[in-house]
Amino acid sequence: MTLLELIEKKKLGKELTREELAFLARAAADHSAPDYQLAALLMAIRLNGMTDRETADLTLAMRDSGDIADLSAIPGVKVDKHSTGGVGDTATLVLAPLAAACGVTVAKMSGRGLGHTGGTLDKLESIPGMRVGLTEAEFVRQVQEIGVAVVGQTGRLAPADKTLYALRDVTSTVDSLPLIVSSILSKKLAAGTDAIVLDVKAGSGAIMHTLEDSLALAEALVRVGALAHKPVIALVTGMDQPLGTHVGNALEVKEAIDVLAGRAEGDLLTVSLRLGGYMMLLAGLVDRPEDGEARMRKALASGAGLRKLKEMIAAQGGDTRVCDDVSLLPQAPVIRTVSCRQAGFVRSMDTTALGLAAQAMGAGRLSLEDQLDYAVGFVLPVRIGDRVTPDTPFCELHARTEADADRAEATIRSAVRIGGAPCEPARNFYAVVTTEGTRRFEEKR
Amino acid sequence: MTLLELIEKKKLGKELTREELAFLARAAADHSAPDYQLAALLMAIRLNGMTDRETADLTLAMRDSGDIADLSAIPGVKVDKHSTGGVGDTATLVLAPLAAACGVTVAKMSGRGLGHTGGTLDKLESIPGMRVGLTEAEFVRQVQEIGVAVVGQTGRLAPADKTLYALRDVTSTVDSLPLIVSSILSKKLAAGTDAIVLDVKAGSGAIMHTLEDSLALAEALVRVGALAHKPVIALVTGMDQPLGTHVGNALEVKEAIDVLAGRAEGDLLTVSLRLGGYMMLLAGLVDRPEDGEARMRKALASGAGLRKLKEMIAAQGGDTRVCDDVSLLPQAPVIRTVSCRQAGFVRSMDTTALGLAAQAMGAGRLSLEDQLDYAVGFVLPVRIGDRVTPDTPFCELHARTEADADRAEATIRSAVRIGGAPCEPARNFYAVVTTEGTRRFEEKR
Repeated sequence: MTLLELIEKKKLGKELTREELAFLARAAADHSAPDYQLAALLMAIRLNGMTDRETADLTLAMRDSGDIADLSAIPGVKVDKHSTGGVGDTATLVLAPLAAACGVTVAKMSGRGLGHTGGTLDKLESIPGMRVGLTEAEFVRQVQEIGVAVVGQTGRLAPADKTLYALRDVTSTVDSLPLIVSSILSKKLAAGTDAIVLDVKAGSGAIMHTLEDSLALAEALVRVGALAHKPVIALVTGMDQPLGTHVGNALEVKEAIDVLAGRAEGDLLTVSLRLGGYMMLLAGLVDRPEDGEARMRKALASGAGLRKLKEMIAAQGGDTRVCDDVSLLPQAPVIRTVSCRQAGFVRSMDTTALGLAAQAMGAGRLSLEDQLDYAVGFVLPVRIGDRVTPDTPFCELHARTEADADRAEATIRSAVRIGGAPCEPARNFYAVVTTEGTRRFEEKR
Repeated sequence: MTLLELIEKKKLGKELTREELAFLARAAADHSAPDYQLAALLMAIRLNGMTDRETADLTLAMRDSGDIADLSAIPGVKVDKHSTGGVGDTATLVLAPLAAACGVTVAKMSGRGLGHTGGTLDKLESIPGMRVGLTEAEFVRQVQEIGVAVVGQTGRLAPADKTLYALRDVTSTVDSLPLIVSSILSKKLAAGTDAIVLDVKAGSGAIMHTLEDSLALAEALVRVGALAHKPVIALVTGMDQPLGTHVGNALEVKEAIDVLAGRAEGDLLTVSLRLGGYMMLLAGLVDRPEDGEARMRKALASGAGLRKLKEMIAAQGGDTRVCDDVSLLPQAPVIRTVSCRQAGFVRSMDTTALGLAAQAMGAGRLSLEDQLDYAVGFVLPVRIGDRVTPDTPFCELHARTEADADRAEATIRSAVRIGGAPCEPARNFYAVVTTEGTRRFEEKR
C-alpha cells in the first residue's frame, strides 16, 4: 500500500478502506509519508468528502496512532466537555467545578489557545503556581481524590492529528467536516473519557461560517461518535458575541470566579449550566438535563462550586487565595475604560475580530512558541440588543502599553456595530443533537 | 499575495486571476512556496478545474518563468511537432527530415523518455557520436544552414513546469486537463516556435484513457493555443498498438532509416506523413495538408528525406554511415525470434505494458538518472487485425541477457491478445482539431 494509491482513490471519489485509513494515520504519526502527499490527500478529502464510516475509521486510527490514557482506575462515568472554540468562552472553568460538586467525574484534558480563540490551559496558568502538566498517575489520583482535574495531555495523544492539523492550517483544508470530526473525536477518545458533551459554536466567532454548517458538524460528531461506540451529545450554541464579558486569560479566570461566587450572571452562566446539565445526564446522575441544571444551580448558590474550584487549584499547586481576592491575579499596567460615544442599539459583533484584538494585545498566540501575557485583554459589558447612550461604559481595556490599548480600542470599536434600530438579543441555544436526532431549541436565549 | 489565498480560492471553485497564476508560476520556478502548498493547489485544480482563460494565463506565466529561446535570427515560419507520448513512436525522426526537405523550418526541442514512452533525444543519442546538447547559437546556426535540428532544451525553459510536473507525478494530479495543457504548451512556447502540430494519442498506450478524453485534450490545447496567440493544430491519432513495429532506441532509429530509405512502410509512415502535411500547412507552404503529404511522398521517393537526415546527423557530430548500414547502430548481444505459437487474429494490445516491457529491458528510465541501454528492445511485426498461425513470426527480442529476453517475451505475449474471431485493423486517425472546430476523420486507417 502506498499513500499515492490512497490519493488516487479519493481523487476519484472512492471510499477508503479501514486498512487504508490506518495506513494514513500511521504515515501522519511517524512522518513516513512526505507532506506534499498528505496535503494532496487532505485536499482530495476536503473536496470529495468522506462517509461516516470512513470518518469513524480515520478517527479510531488517529486515536490509535499514539498513547491512550488509561482512566480505568477512576470509578464512575468520566464525562468530558469540548468546545469547537469561542471567544470569552470560560465555560469549562465554570461547569467543571459545578459538575464535580454535583457528583460528575470530570477528568478533562484541555488545549491551548491558537488563533482567535482562547485555551483553558492558558487561562488556568494565569493563576499563580497552577500546574497543568500532570503525569497520568497524578491526573488519575487527583480525580480519584476530588473528582475533578483539568490538565494538558498526559501522553503523546493522537500524534497523527498533530501532523494533519498543522498541515490543514497551511493548505486551506481546515473546513472539512470529516477532518474536523476526526480531529476532535480522536483526541477526546485518546484522552480515555467515557462520554462527551460537545459545544459546537455557531455565529461570527465560530469555526463554521453558517448555522447550517454548525448543525451539520454537530450531527456528524454525534453520528461518528456512535460508530466509535462512544456516547456523544452535541449542543449548538451561539457565538455571535463573546460568551462571557471578559476576554483574556486572567480576566476570564476572574469572571469564572465571579460567576461561581454568585457575583455575576449572564450568558456564560446560562450556557455553562446547560452544558453541565447534559454532562450530568451522560453521567447517569439525572434523567433530564433540566434536573442537572437545577442541581448545579443549587451547588452554585451554596458555594459548593467555588469550593470545588479551590480544591482543584490547591491540588494543582495554584494559589487558592485568588478565589477570594481576584486582584491577586496578574494585573495589566494600563487599564482604560471607554464609553460608547454614540447612542443606539448594539446590533452585531465581529467576534473573530474581537478574539484577534485580544490576541494582538498578547493574550493569544500567533505561533505555538509565543509567550502569553496573562494580564491583558478586555471587558466588554455591552451585549447584542443592548440600548446604549454615548456615556454607557463600552469597554475596559487591560493592556501592556498605551499604544496597545489604542490599537485594541480601535479594533473593538470597529468590530461592534451600533445602529439606530432596536434589535433582538443574540441567541444562546440553537439545537441539541443526540443519536435520537436533532431537536431545535425554541427559546430565544 | 500568498499561495494559501490561491489554494482557498481554487478550493471554493473560484477563478484565479492572471496575477495569481503568475505568482504560482514564480513560486514553483524558484521553490519559494513549500511543496505541500503546491500539492494542495494542484489537487484543487485537478478537482475543480480551470477555465481556458486561467489555463492560458498559467501557460504564459510558466513560459515566462525561465528562459525563452530566441529563434528570430532564423528566417521563415518555425514549426514544431509534439506528441503526448507513445510507444514505438518514431514519427519525429521520419517527418523532421522529410518536412525540412520540403522547405519547412524545423527547429525542434525534444525530450527524454520517462515511463512507458520513449524520448526522441534518447533515440538520437543511440547514433554513435550524435550530440543533442547544442547551445542556442549552435542550434540557430544549424537550422539556418540545413533547415533542421532536433536538440535538447537550449536553456532553462519553463522551470515552473519542471517543479509542477515532478509534484504531479507523486500526488496523482497528472490527469488534469488544464495542467496537461499548460505543461505542454508552456514548454513549446518557451522553445520559441512559431506554430505547433500536436499529436494527441488515443488508445491503450495513451496518457488519456478514453477517446473522448483525448479529444477533449486536443480541443483544449487548440483553444488555449489560440488564447496564447500561437497557431496550433492537434491531430488525435491511434495508440492502440505501437506506432512503428520497432520499440527501443537504436531499433527505432533503424526503423526510421528503413522508412526514409523506402525499405519500410506502414502506420509509422502513414502517421508521419499526415502530421508533416499539417506542418507544411502551418508553415504556409501548402493550402491543404494533402498537398503537403504528396510533396513529402516525393521527397521520400527521391531520397531527399534520407539525405536530410544524414545532413542533420553530420551537423550534430553523428556517424552518418548508419544511414547506409544500420548494423553500425548498437546491437544487443541476445537476439531471439519467437513465433506466435497459436492461430487466430491479433485482437488487441496493452500498449502501455509493451512500453514498460521495453523499459524493463533497459530501453527506458525508471528515474531520470537511469542510464539507458540503446541496443535493447523488440520488433513486433504483428498488427491488430492480422491473421496469424502458430508459425507466424511474433516478436524479435533484442536483450542484454537471456533472462531479460525471457521476461520480456512473457510480458509481450500477455500484452498481445490473440483470439479466434476476425477483427478490424486499429485506427490511425480519429480527428483533427483547429480553431475552426473538430473534424472527425472518416477513414478507418
